[in-house]
Amino acid sequence: MPSPKIDGTARGYVIPIGGAEDKLHNPQILKKFIALAGGQNSVISIIPTASQLDDTGERYQHLFTELGAGELNVLPISERADAQKAEYLTLLAKSTAIFVTGGNQLRLSTILGGTPIAKAIRQLNAKGVHYAGTSAGAAIVSQHMITGGTSGIVPTENGVSLAPGLGLVNSAVIDQHFNQRNRLARLLSAVSYNPFLIGLGLDEDTAAFIDDKNQFTVVGSGAITVIDPSNIEYSSMAEANSGDALTLLNLKMHILASGSRYDLNARQAFIK
Amino acid sequence: MPSPKIDGTARGYVIPIGGAEDKLHNPQILKKFIALAGGQNSVISIIPTASQLDDTGERYQHLFTELGAGELNVLPISERADAQKAEYLTLLAKSTAIFVTGGNQLRLSTILGGTPIAKAIRQLNAKGVHYAGTSAGAAIVSQHMITGGTSGIVPTENGVSLAPGLGLVNSAVIDQHFNQRNRLARLLSAVSYNPFLIGLGLDEDTAAFIDDKNQFTVVGSGAITVIDPSNIEYSSMAEANSGDALTLLNLKMHILASGSRYDLNARQAFIK
Repeated sequence: MPSPKIDGTARGYVIPIGGAEDKLHNPQILKKFIALAGGQNSVISIIPTASQLDDTGERYQHLFTELGAGELNVLPISERADAQKAEYLTLLAKSTAIFVTGGNQLRLSTILGGTPIAKAIRQLNAKGVHYAGTSAGAAIVSQHMITGGTSGIVPTENGVSLAPGLGLVNSAVIDQHFNQRNRLARLLSAVSYNPFLIGLGLDEDTAAFIDDKNQFTVVGSGAITVIDPSNIEYSSMAEANSGDALTLLNLKMHILASGSRYDLNARQAFIK
Repeated sequence: MPSPKIDGTARGYVIPIGGAEDKLHNPQILKKFIALAGGQNSVISIIPTASQLDDTGERYQHLFTELGAGELNVLPISERADAQKAEYLTLLAKSTAIFVTGGNQLRLSTILGGTPIAKAIRQLNAKGVHYAGTSAGAAIVSQHMITGGTSGIVPTENGVSLAPGLGLVNSAVIDQHFNQRNRLARLLSAVSYNPFLIGLGLDEDTAAFIDDKNQFTVVGSGAITVIDPSNIEYSSMAEANSGDALTLLNLKMHILASGSRYDLNARQAFIK
Protein backbone atom coordinates (compact mmCIF):
# COMPACT_ATOMS: atom_id res chain seq x y z
CA MET A 1 0.00 0.00 0.00
CA PRO A 2 1.21 3.55 -0.68
CA SER A 3 2.23 5.46 2.45
CA PRO A 4 -0.67 7.36 4.01
CA LYS A 5 -0.93 10.97 2.90
CA ILE A 6 0.34 13.71 5.16
CA ASP A 7 -2.57 15.98 6.08
CA GLY A 8 -3.21 18.73 3.57
CA THR A 9 -0.41 17.70 1.22
CA ALA A 10 -1.05 16.10 -2.15
CA ARG A 11 0.89 12.99 -3.11
CA GLY A 12 3.70 13.64 -5.57
CA TYR A 13 3.39 12.46 -9.14
CA VAL A 14 4.35 8.85 -9.82
CA ILE A 15 5.87 8.65 -13.30
CA PRO A 16 6.71 5.23 -14.68
CA ILE A 17 8.53 5.48 -18.04
CA GLY A 18 8.67 2.53 -20.47
CA GLY A 19 12.45 2.73 -20.96
CA ALA A 20 14.58 4.27 -23.72
CA GLU A 21 13.08 7.73 -23.19
CA ASP A 22 14.23 10.30 -25.74
CA LYS A 23 17.21 12.17 -24.30
CA LEU A 24 18.28 14.21 -27.33
CA HIS A 25 15.79 15.18 -30.02
CA ASN A 26 12.51 15.52 -28.16
CA PRO A 27 13.07 14.75 -24.47
CA GLN A 28 9.48 15.69 -23.61
CA ILE A 29 9.12 13.18 -20.76
CA LEU A 30 12.27 14.24 -18.92
CA LYS A 31 11.50 17.93 -19.51
CA LYS A 32 8.04 17.55 -18.05
CA PHE A 33 9.47 15.65 -15.07
CA ILE A 34 12.03 18.40 -14.40
CA ALA A 35 9.36 21.08 -14.72
CA LEU A 36 7.19 19.28 -12.14
CA ALA A 37 10.24 18.97 -9.87
CA GLY A 38 10.66 22.73 -9.92
CA GLY A 39 12.95 23.39 -12.89
CA GLN A 40 15.93 25.50 -11.76
CA ASN A 41 14.70 25.20 -8.17
CA SER A 42 14.45 21.42 -8.31
CA VAL A 43 16.45 19.12 -6.05
CA ILE A 44 16.54 15.71 -7.70
CA SER A 45 17.93 12.51 -6.19
CA ILE A 46 19.09 9.98 -8.78
CA ILE A 47 19.12 6.32 -7.73
CA PRO A 48 21.11 4.17 -10.21
CA THR A 49 20.85 0.95 -8.19
CA ALA A 50 19.20 -1.10 -10.94
CA SER A 51 22.10 -0.51 -13.30
CA GLN A 52 25.41 -2.31 -13.16
CA LEU A 53 27.16 0.39 -15.16
CA ASP A 54 29.28 2.74 -13.06
CA ASP A 55 28.29 5.93 -14.88
CA THR A 56 24.50 5.59 -15.13
CA GLY A 57 23.86 8.06 -12.31
CA GLU A 58 26.32 10.60 -13.68
CA ARG A 59 24.89 10.37 -17.18
CA TYR A 60 21.44 11.36 -15.90
CA GLN A 61 23.05 14.06 -13.75
CA HIS A 62 24.61 15.69 -16.82
CA LEU A 63 21.49 15.21 -18.88
CA PHE A 64 19.19 16.75 -16.25
CA THR A 65 21.59 19.70 -15.89
CA GLU A 66 21.44 20.29 -19.63
CA LEU A 67 17.65 20.13 -19.46
CA GLY A 68 17.57 22.88 -16.82
CA ALA A 69 17.32 21.04 -13.51
CA GLY A 70 18.69 22.60 -10.28
CA GLU A 71 20.54 20.53 -7.66
CA LEU A 72 21.29 16.95 -8.62
CA ASN A 73 22.48 14.26 -6.21
CA VAL A 74 23.42 10.77 -7.26
CA LEU A 75 22.88 8.15 -4.55
CA PRO A 76 25.23 5.29 -5.52
CA ILE A 77 23.44 2.60 -3.56
CA SER A 78 24.85 -0.71 -4.79
CA GLU A 79 24.31 -2.98 -1.78
CA ARG A 80 21.90 -3.24 1.14
CA ALA A 81 24.31 -1.58 3.58
CA ASP A 82 24.29 1.55 1.38
CA ALA A 83 20.51 1.77 1.74
CA GLN A 84 20.95 2.52 5.46
CA LYS A 85 23.38 5.43 5.10
CA ALA A 86 22.38 8.63 6.87
CA GLU A 87 23.99 10.85 4.21
CA TYR A 88 21.79 9.34 1.49
CA LEU A 89 18.70 9.67 3.66
CA THR A 90 19.56 13.33 4.26
CA LEU A 91 19.98 13.99 0.54
CA LEU A 92 16.73 12.17 -0.21
CA ALA A 93 14.85 14.14 2.45
CA LYS A 94 15.54 17.49 0.75
CA SER A 95 14.50 16.27 -2.72
CA THR A 96 11.67 17.73 -4.72
CA ALA A 97 11.85 14.65 -6.96
CA ILE A 98 13.44 11.21 -7.16
CA PHE A 99 14.60 9.52 -10.37
CA VAL A 100 15.27 5.77 -10.51
CA THR A 101 17.20 4.51 -13.54
CA GLY A 102 16.81 1.36 -15.60
CA GLY A 103 18.67 -1.90 -15.23
CA ASN A 104 17.35 -4.96 -13.41
CA GLN A 105 14.28 -4.51 -11.23
CA LEU A 106 15.36 -7.45 -9.07
CA ARG A 107 18.39 -5.39 -8.07
CA LEU A 108 16.00 -2.66 -6.92
CA SER A 109 13.77 -5.03 -4.94
CA THR A 110 16.59 -7.09 -3.43
CA ILE A 111 18.83 -4.13 -2.52
CA LEU A 112 16.21 -1.54 -1.52
CA GLY A 113 13.38 -3.77 -0.28
CA GLY A 114 12.64 -3.23 3.42
CA THR A 115 15.39 -0.61 3.90
CA PRO A 116 15.13 2.94 5.27
CA ILE A 117 15.66 4.25 1.71
CA ALA A 118 12.62 2.34 0.38
CA LYS A 119 10.54 3.56 3.30
CA ALA A 120 11.73 7.14 2.75
CA ILE A 121 10.84 7.03 -0.96
CA ARG A 122 7.29 5.98 -0.13
CA GLN A 123 6.87 8.53 2.64
CA LEU A 124 8.36 11.38 0.59
CA ASN A 125 6.14 10.58 -2.37
CA ALA A 126 3.10 10.59 -0.07
CA LYS A 127 4.17 14.08 1.13
CA GLY A 128 4.43 15.51 -2.38
CA VAL A 129 7.87 14.50 -3.72
CA HIS A 130 7.62 13.32 -7.33
CA TYR A 131 8.92 9.91 -8.33
CA ALA A 132 9.98 9.00 -11.86
CA GLY A 133 11.51 5.70 -12.88
CA THR A 134 12.45 4.32 -16.26
CA SER A 135 12.38 0.64 -17.28
CA ALA A 136 13.31 -1.22 -14.05
CA GLY A 137 12.58 2.02 -12.20
CA ALA A 138 9.05 1.89 -13.68
CA ALA A 139 8.47 -1.79 -12.91
CA ILE A 140 9.38 -1.32 -9.22
CA VAL A 141 6.55 1.22 -8.83
CA SER A 142 4.03 -1.64 -8.75
CA GLN A 143 3.04 -3.34 -5.51
CA HIS A 144 3.03 -6.55 -7.58
CA MET A 145 6.06 -6.26 -9.86
CA ILE A 146 6.76 -8.24 -13.02
CA THR A 147 10.28 -9.69 -12.94
CA GLY A 148 10.14 -11.85 -16.06
CA GLY A 149 7.94 -13.94 -18.31
CA THR A 150 7.24 -15.14 -21.81
CA SER A 151 7.04 -12.82 -24.79
CA GLY A 152 4.20 -12.80 -27.30
CA ILE A 153 0.48 -12.18 -27.13
CA VAL A 154 -1.18 -15.28 -25.73
CA PRO A 155 -0.83 -15.76 -21.96
CA THR A 156 0.07 -19.06 -20.33
CA GLU A 157 -0.27 -20.49 -16.86
CA ASN A 158 3.42 -19.96 -16.09
CA GLY A 159 3.84 -16.92 -18.33
CA VAL A 160 4.96 -14.38 -15.74
CA SER A 161 6.99 -14.08 -12.54
CA LEU A 162 5.94 -11.60 -9.87
CA ALA A 163 7.76 -10.18 -6.86
CA PRO A 164 6.85 -7.47 -4.36
CA GLY A 165 7.77 -4.00 -5.61
CA LEU A 166 7.94 -0.56 -3.97
CA GLY A 167 4.16 -0.24 -4.00
CA LEU A 168 3.82 3.43 -4.96
CA VAL A 169 0.91 2.21 -7.06
CA ASN A 170 -1.19 -0.58 -5.65
CA SER A 171 -3.90 -1.31 -8.19
CA ALA A 172 -1.74 -1.47 -11.33
CA VAL A 173 0.95 -3.81 -12.53
CA ILE A 174 3.37 -1.95 -14.80
CA ASP A 175 5.33 -3.47 -17.65
CA GLN A 176 7.80 -1.61 -19.87
CA HIS A 177 9.50 -1.89 -23.29
CA PHE A 178 6.00 -3.17 -24.01
CA ASN A 179 5.48 -3.00 -27.77
CA GLN A 180 9.19 -3.33 -28.48
CA ARG A 181 9.53 -6.63 -26.57
CA ASN A 182 6.02 -7.99 -27.18
CA ARG A 183 5.06 -8.27 -23.54
CA LEU A 184 1.27 -8.56 -23.73
CA ALA A 185 1.37 -12.29 -22.89
CA ARG A 186 3.09 -11.75 -19.56
CA LEU A 187 0.90 -8.75 -18.66
CA LEU A 188 -2.23 -10.83 -19.37
CA SER A 189 -0.85 -13.67 -17.25
CA ALA A 190 -0.23 -11.17 -14.42
CA VAL A 191 -3.71 -9.64 -14.40
CA SER A 192 -5.37 -13.02 -14.72
CA TYR A 193 -3.75 -14.18 -11.45
CA ASN A 194 -5.95 -11.69 -9.67
CA PRO A 195 -8.26 -9.40 -11.64
CA PHE A 196 -8.15 -6.61 -9.05
CA LEU A 197 -5.02 -5.56 -10.92
CA ILE A 198 -5.04 -3.21 -13.91
CA GLY A 199 -2.29 -4.00 -16.41
CA LEU A 200 -0.34 -1.07 -17.83
CA GLY A 201 2.01 -1.83 -20.74
CA LEU A 202 4.32 1.12 -21.34
CA ASP A 203 6.08 1.45 -24.66
CA GLU A 204 9.59 2.83 -24.84
CA ASP A 205 9.77 6.66 -24.73
CA THR A 206 6.29 6.68 -23.17
CA ALA A 207 5.31 7.60 -19.62
CA ALA A 208 2.27 7.69 -17.37
CA PHE A 209 2.15 10.87 -15.28
CA ILE A 210 0.00 9.59 -12.40
CA ASP A 211 -1.37 12.41 -10.24
CA ASP A 212 -2.56 12.39 -6.64
CA LYS A 213 -6.09 11.45 -7.73
CA ASN A 214 -4.72 8.28 -9.39
CA GLN A 215 -5.42 9.63 -12.88
CA PHE A 216 -2.66 9.62 -15.45
CA THR A 217 -1.84 11.41 -18.67
CA VAL A 218 0.19 9.67 -21.38
CA VAL A 219 3.31 11.50 -22.57
CA GLY A 220 5.70 10.28 -25.26
CA SER A 221 6.01 8.84 -28.72
CA GLY A 222 4.45 5.41 -28.08
CA ALA A 223 1.33 4.22 -26.32
CA ILE A 224 0.20 2.73 -23.04
CA THR A 225 -1.83 -0.45 -23.36
CA VAL A 226 -4.35 -0.77 -20.53
CA ILE A 227 -5.76 -4.20 -19.68
CA ASP A 228 -8.75 -3.96 -17.36
CA PRO A 229 -9.86 -7.42 -16.22
CA SER A 230 -12.50 -6.21 -13.77
CA ASN A 231 -15.38 -7.58 -15.86
CA ILE A 232 -13.63 -10.85 -16.64
CA GLU A 233 -16.18 -13.66 -16.87
CA TYR A 234 -13.84 -16.61 -16.77
CA SER A 235 -10.15 -17.41 -16.48
CA SER A 236 -8.70 -20.89 -16.84
CA MET A 237 -5.61 -19.90 -14.79
CA ALA A 238 -6.49 -22.10 -11.82
CA GLU A 239 -7.06 -25.22 -13.94
CA ALA A 240 -4.44 -24.79 -16.68
CA ASN A 241 -1.27 -26.83 -16.82
CA SER A 242 2.14 -25.20 -17.06
CA GLY A 243 2.64 -23.80 -20.57
CA ASP A 244 -1.00 -24.19 -21.60
CA ALA A 245 -2.62 -21.32 -23.48
CA LEU A 246 -5.14 -19.68 -21.15
CA THR A 247 -8.78 -18.94 -21.82
CA LEU A 248 -9.75 -15.44 -20.64
CA LEU A 249 -13.24 -14.14 -21.38
CA ASN A 250 -14.19 -10.47 -21.51
CA LEU A 251 -11.15 -8.35 -20.94
CA LYS A 252 -11.33 -4.62 -21.58
CA MET A 253 -8.44 -3.05 -23.47
CA HIS A 254 -7.49 0.53 -24.25
CA ILE A 255 -4.58 1.73 -26.33
CA LEU A 256 -3.64 5.22 -25.15
CA ALA A 257 -1.36 7.42 -27.23
CA SER A 258 0.13 10.72 -26.06
CA GLY A 259 -2.38 13.10 -24.50
CA SER A 260 -4.89 10.40 -23.55
CA ARG A 261 -5.90 10.01 -19.91
CA TYR A 262 -6.92 7.17 -17.62
CA ASP A 263 -8.50 7.08 -14.19
CA LEU A 264 -7.09 4.11 -12.24
CA ASN A 265 -9.80 4.38 -9.55
CA ALA A 266 -12.80 4.68 -11.88
CA ARG A 267 -11.12 2.42 -14.49
CA GLN A 268 -12.11 4.78 -17.24
CA ALA A 269 -10.22 6.12 -20.26
CA PHE A 270 -10.51 9.58 -21.79
CA ILE A 271 -9.09 11.13 -24.91
CA LYS A 272 -8.32 14.46 -23.21
CA MET B 1 -21.01 -11.59 -48.65
CA PRO B 2 -21.23 -15.40 -48.36
CA SER B 3 -23.26 -17.04 -51.11
CA PRO B 4 -26.94 -17.37 -50.22
CA LYS B 5 -27.88 -20.69 -48.66
CA ILE B 6 -29.53 -23.33 -50.77
CA ASP B 7 -32.99 -24.06 -49.34
CA GLY B 8 -32.93 -26.62 -46.56
CA THR B 9 -29.18 -27.21 -46.68
CA ALA B 10 -26.86 -25.99 -43.93
CA ARG B 11 -23.71 -24.14 -44.90
CA GLY B 12 -20.56 -26.23 -44.65
CA TYR B 13 -18.07 -25.58 -41.90
CA VAL B 14 -15.54 -22.82 -42.52
CA ILE B 15 -12.28 -23.78 -40.82
CA PRO B 16 -9.46 -21.26 -40.79
CA ILE B 17 -6.25 -22.72 -39.31
CA GLY B 18 -3.47 -20.47 -37.99
CA GLY B 19 -0.71 -22.27 -39.92
CA ALA B 20 1.81 -24.94 -38.89
CA GLU B 21 -0.92 -27.37 -37.83
CA ASP B 22 0.39 -30.53 -36.21
CA LYS B 23 0.73 -33.22 -38.87
CA LEU B 24 2.51 -35.93 -36.90
CA HIS B 25 2.12 -36.21 -33.13
CA ASN B 26 -1.37 -34.91 -32.47
CA PRO B 27 -2.98 -33.89 -35.78
CA GLN B 28 -6.30 -33.14 -34.07
CA ILE B 29 -7.29 -30.31 -36.41
CA LEU B 30 -6.76 -32.27 -39.62
CA LYS B 31 -8.41 -35.38 -38.14
CA LYS B 32 -11.49 -33.41 -37.17
CA PHE B 33 -11.61 -31.83 -40.63
CA ILE B 34 -11.43 -35.23 -42.31
CA ALA B 35 -14.11 -36.62 -40.02
CA LEU B 36 -16.42 -33.73 -40.93
CA ALA B 37 -15.66 -34.33 -44.61
CA GLY B 38 -16.90 -37.93 -44.27
CA GLY B 39 -13.78 -39.90 -43.31
CA GLN B 40 -13.36 -42.83 -45.70
CA ASN B 41 -16.26 -41.52 -47.75
CA SER B 42 -14.80 -38.03 -48.08
CA VAL B 43 -13.94 -36.44 -51.39
CA ILE B 44 -11.46 -33.64 -50.69
CA SER B 45 -10.17 -31.07 -53.18
CA ILE B 46 -6.77 -29.67 -52.30
CA ILE B 47 -5.91 -26.22 -53.67
CA PRO B 48 -2.17 -25.47 -53.33
CA THR B 49 -2.30 -22.15 -55.22
CA ALA B 50 -0.86 -20.05 -52.37
CA SER B 51 2.31 -22.13 -52.27
CA GLN B 52 5.18 -21.82 -54.70
CA LEU B 53 6.51 -25.25 -53.85
CA ASP B 54 5.66 -27.91 -56.42
CA ASP B 55 4.84 -30.66 -53.94
CA THR B 56 2.58 -28.86 -51.44
CA GLY B 57 -0.59 -30.40 -52.84
CA GLU B 58 0.87 -33.90 -52.94
CA ARG B 59 2.19 -33.62 -49.38
CA TYR B 60 -1.32 -32.94 -48.09
CA GLN B 61 -2.68 -35.69 -50.34
CA HIS B 62 -0.39 -38.26 -48.70
CA LEU B 63 -1.01 -36.87 -45.24
CA PHE B 64 -4.81 -36.94 -45.61
CA THR B 65 -4.62 -40.52 -46.94
CA GLU B 66 -2.63 -41.55 -43.88
CA LEU B 67 -5.21 -39.85 -41.69
CA GLY B 68 -8.02 -41.89 -43.23
CA ALA B 69 -9.51 -39.64 -45.92
CA GLY B 70 -11.22 -41.10 -49.00
CA GLU B 71 -10.77 -39.60 -52.49
CA LEU B 72 -8.22 -36.82 -52.75
CA ASN B 73 -7.83 -34.52 -55.73
CA VAL B 74 -5.11 -31.90 -56.04
CA LEU B 75 -6.12 -28.92 -58.20
CA PRO B 76 -2.79 -27.44 -59.31
CA ILE B 77 -4.09 -23.99 -60.11
CA SER B 78 -1.06 -21.75 -60.56
CA GLU B 79 -2.35 -19.03 -62.88
CA ARG B 80 -5.69 -17.39 -63.65
CA ALA B 81 -6.27 -19.47 -66.78
CA ASP B 82 -6.19 -22.64 -64.60
CA ALA B 83 -9.03 -21.24 -62.50
CA GLN B 84 -11.37 -21.54 -65.51
CA LYS B 85 -10.69 -25.21 -66.32
CA ALA B 86 -13.75 -27.40 -66.57
CA GLU B 87 -11.92 -30.45 -65.19
CA TYR B 88 -11.08 -28.63 -61.96
CA LEU B 89 -14.65 -27.35 -61.65
CA THR B 90 -15.92 -30.90 -62.10
CA LEU B 91 -13.59 -32.23 -59.40
CA LEU B 92 -14.56 -29.40 -57.09
CA ALA B 93 -18.28 -30.02 -57.66
CA LYS B 94 -18.12 -33.55 -56.29
CA SER B 95 -16.15 -32.56 -53.16
CA THR B 96 -17.40 -33.02 -49.64
CA ALA B 97 -14.64 -30.67 -48.49
CA ILE B 98 -12.05 -28.23 -49.84
CA PHE B 99 -8.61 -27.65 -48.36
CA VAL B 100 -6.54 -24.58 -49.23
CA THR B 101 -2.86 -24.68 -48.29
CA GLY B 102 -0.58 -21.98 -46.95
CA GLY B 103 1.78 -19.76 -48.88
CA ASN B 104 1.00 -16.19 -49.93
CA GLN B 105 -2.60 -15.02 -49.61
CA LEU B 106 -2.02 -12.49 -52.40
CA ARG B 107 -1.45 -15.42 -54.74
CA LEU B 108 -4.87 -16.73 -53.72
CA SER B 109 -6.64 -13.40 -54.21
CA THR B 110 -4.86 -12.45 -57.44
CA ILE B 111 -5.12 -15.90 -59.08
CA LEU B 112 -8.55 -17.02 -57.82
CA GLY B 113 -10.31 -13.68 -57.36
CA GLY B 114 -13.32 -13.29 -59.65
CA THR B 115 -12.83 -16.69 -61.32
CA PRO B 116 -15.30 -19.58 -61.68
CA ILE B 117 -13.26 -21.52 -59.08
CA ALA B 118 -13.71 -18.77 -56.47
CA LYS B 119 -17.41 -18.59 -57.22
CA ALA B 120 -17.72 -22.37 -57.02
CA ILE B 121 -15.96 -22.48 -53.62
CA ARG B 122 -18.42 -19.96 -52.20
CA GLN B 123 -21.46 -21.69 -53.69
CA LEU B 124 -20.34 -25.14 -52.62
CA ASN B 125 -19.67 -23.97 -49.08
CA ALA B 126 -23.15 -22.42 -48.97
CA LYS B 127 -24.58 -25.81 -50.02
CA GLY B 128 -22.79 -27.73 -47.28
CA VAL B 129 -19.26 -28.42 -48.53
CA HIS B 130 -16.72 -27.81 -45.78
CA TYR B 131 -13.83 -25.40 -46.34
CA ALA B 132 -10.56 -25.55 -44.42
CA GLY B 133 -7.56 -23.36 -45.10
CA THR B 134 -4.27 -22.98 -43.29
CA SER B 135 -2.20 -19.81 -43.01
CA ALA B 136 -2.83 -18.00 -46.34
CA GLY B 137 -5.78 -20.36 -46.83
CA ALA B 138 -7.16 -19.04 -43.53
CA ALA B 139 -6.55 -15.37 -44.31
CA ILE B 140 -8.42 -15.60 -47.63
CA VAL B 141 -11.59 -16.69 -45.79
CA SER B 142 -12.17 -13.06 -44.73
CA GLN B 143 -14.15 -10.64 -46.85
CA HIS B 144 -11.56 -8.08 -45.74
CA MET B 145 -8.24 -9.89 -45.83
CA ILE B 146 -4.99 -8.86 -44.14
CA THR B 147 -2.10 -8.96 -46.60
CA GLY B 148 0.62 -7.43 -44.45
CA GLY B 149 1.41 -4.99 -41.69
CA THR B 150 3.60 -4.15 -38.74
CA SER B 151 4.36 -6.62 -35.98
CA GLY B 152 4.02 -5.87 -32.29
CA ILE B 153 1.18 -4.91 -30.00
CA VAL B 154 0.45 -1.22 -30.52
CA PRO B 155 -1.46 -0.35 -33.70
CA THR B 156 -0.54 2.50 -36.00
CA GLU B 157 -2.35 4.46 -38.68
CA ASN B 158 -0.57 2.60 -41.49
CA GLY B 159 -0.13 -0.64 -39.57
CA VAL B 160 -2.02 -3.00 -41.87
CA SER B 161 -2.77 -3.62 -45.55
CA LEU B 162 -6.15 -5.02 -46.56
CA ALA B 163 -7.39 -6.59 -49.78
CA PRO B 164 -10.65 -8.30 -50.72
CA GLY B 165 -10.66 -11.99 -49.81
CA LEU B 166 -12.96 -14.91 -50.64
CA GLY B 167 -15.60 -13.67 -48.23
CA LEU B 168 -16.73 -16.99 -46.73
CA VAL B 169 -16.86 -15.03 -43.49
CA ASN B 170 -18.02 -11.44 -43.68
CA SER B 171 -17.94 -10.08 -40.16
CA ALA B 172 -14.49 -11.28 -39.11
CA VAL B 173 -10.98 -10.43 -40.22
CA ILE B 174 -8.71 -13.43 -39.70
CA ASP B 175 -5.01 -13.29 -38.98
CA GLN B 176 -2.74 -16.30 -38.52
CA HIS B 177 0.66 -17.26 -36.99
CA PHE B 178 -0.72 -14.80 -34.45
CA ASN B 179 1.20 -15.29 -31.23
CA GLN B 180 4.26 -16.61 -33.04
CA ARG B 181 4.63 -13.50 -35.23
CA ASN B 182 3.22 -10.93 -32.77
CA ARG B 183 0.43 -9.75 -35.01
CA LEU B 184 -1.88 -7.97 -32.57
CA ALA B 185 -0.83 -4.52 -33.83
CA ARG B 186 -1.96 -5.21 -37.38
CA LEU B 187 -5.21 -6.88 -36.25
CA LEU B 188 -6.02 -3.85 -34.07
CA SER B 189 -5.26 -1.53 -36.99
CA ALA B 190 -7.62 -3.59 -39.16
CA VAL B 191 -10.59 -3.57 -36.78
CA SER B 192 -10.13 0.12 -36.02
CA TYR B 193 -10.61 0.99 -39.70
CA ASN B 194 -14.22 -0.09 -39.32
CA PRO B 195 -15.45 -1.52 -36.02
CA PHE B 196 -18.12 -3.69 -37.68
CA LEU B 197 -15.27 -6.20 -38.02
CA ILE B 198 -14.38 -8.75 -35.36
CA GLY B 199 -10.67 -9.53 -35.26
CA LEU B 200 -9.66 -13.18 -34.94
CA GLY B 201 -5.99 -13.89 -34.29
CA LEU B 202 -5.25 -17.58 -34.81
CA ASP B 203 -2.14 -19.09 -33.31
CA GLU B 204 -0.23 -21.80 -35.14
CA ASP B 205 -1.74 -25.28 -34.76
CA THR B 206 -5.05 -23.68 -33.79
CA ALA B 207 -8.28 -23.57 -35.77
CA ALA B 208 -11.76 -22.07 -35.60
CA PHE B 209 -14.42 -24.59 -36.64
CA ILE B 210 -17.14 -22.12 -37.72
CA ASP B 211 -20.55 -23.77 -38.08
CA ASP B 212 -23.57 -22.73 -40.12
CA LYS B 213 -24.86 -20.60 -37.22
CA ASN B 214 -21.63 -18.57 -37.28
CA GLN B 215 -20.49 -20.03 -33.97
CA PHE B 216 -17.05 -21.52 -33.71
CA THR B 217 -15.20 -23.94 -31.47
CA VAL B 218 -11.46 -23.61 -30.92
CA VAL B 219 -9.38 -26.72 -31.67
CA GLY B 220 -5.61 -26.98 -31.27
CA SER B 221 -2.66 -26.33 -29.03
CA GLY B 222 -2.71 -22.52 -29.08
CA ALA B 223 -5.41 -19.90 -28.67
CA ILE B 224 -7.60 -17.62 -30.72
CA THR B 225 -7.48 -13.96 -29.67
CA VAL B 226 -10.80 -12.24 -30.33
CA ILE B 227 -10.87 -8.44 -30.62
CA ASP B 228 -14.42 -7.10 -30.51
CA PRO B 229 -14.46 -3.36 -31.21
CA SER B 230 -18.23 -3.01 -31.28
CA ASN B 231 -18.32 -0.92 -28.08
CA ILE B 232 -15.33 1.20 -29.08
CA GLU B 233 -15.75 4.73 -27.73
CA TYR B 234 -13.05 6.46 -29.71
CA SER B 235 -10.45 5.73 -32.36
CA SER B 236 -7.84 8.23 -33.51
CA MET B 237 -7.45 6.40 -36.84
CA ALA B 238 -8.99 9.19 -38.92
CA GLU B 239 -6.78 11.91 -37.40
CA ALA B 240 -3.51 10.05 -36.86
CA ASN B 241 -0.46 10.58 -39.02
CA SER B 242 1.30 7.69 -40.73
CA GLY B 243 3.25 5.69 -38.15
CA ASP B 244 1.62 7.38 -35.13
CA ALA B 245 0.54 5.16 -32.26
CA LEU B 246 -3.28 5.06 -32.23
CA THR B 247 -5.59 5.75 -29.34
CA LEU B 248 -8.39 3.16 -29.11
CA LEU B 249 -10.78 3.28 -26.18
CA ASN B 250 -12.83 0.36 -24.93
CA LEU B 251 -12.01 -2.72 -26.94
CA LYS B 252 -13.26 -6.08 -25.76
CA MET B 253 -10.78 -8.95 -25.88
CA HIS B 254 -11.12 -12.69 -25.33
CA ILE B 255 -8.34 -15.27 -25.36
CA LEU B 256 -9.87 -18.62 -26.32
CA ALA B 257 -7.94 -21.84 -25.80
CA SER B 258 -9.02 -25.24 -27.14
CA GLY B 259 -12.62 -26.13 -26.42
CA SER B 260 -13.82 -22.54 -25.98
CA ARG B 261 -16.59 -21.24 -28.22
CA TYR B 262 -17.54 -17.90 -29.77
CA ASP B 263 -20.71 -16.67 -31.43
CA LEU B 264 -19.77 -14.27 -34.24
CA ASN B 265 -23.36 -13.01 -34.58
CA ALA B 266 -24.04 -12.42 -30.89
CA ARG B 267 -20.38 -11.45 -30.29
CA GLN B 268 -20.28 -13.59 -27.18
CA ALA B 269 -17.68 -16.01 -25.83
CA PHE B 270 -18.35 -19.25 -23.97
CA ILE B 271 -16.06 -21.69 -22.21
CA LYS B 272 -17.97 -24.74 -23.49
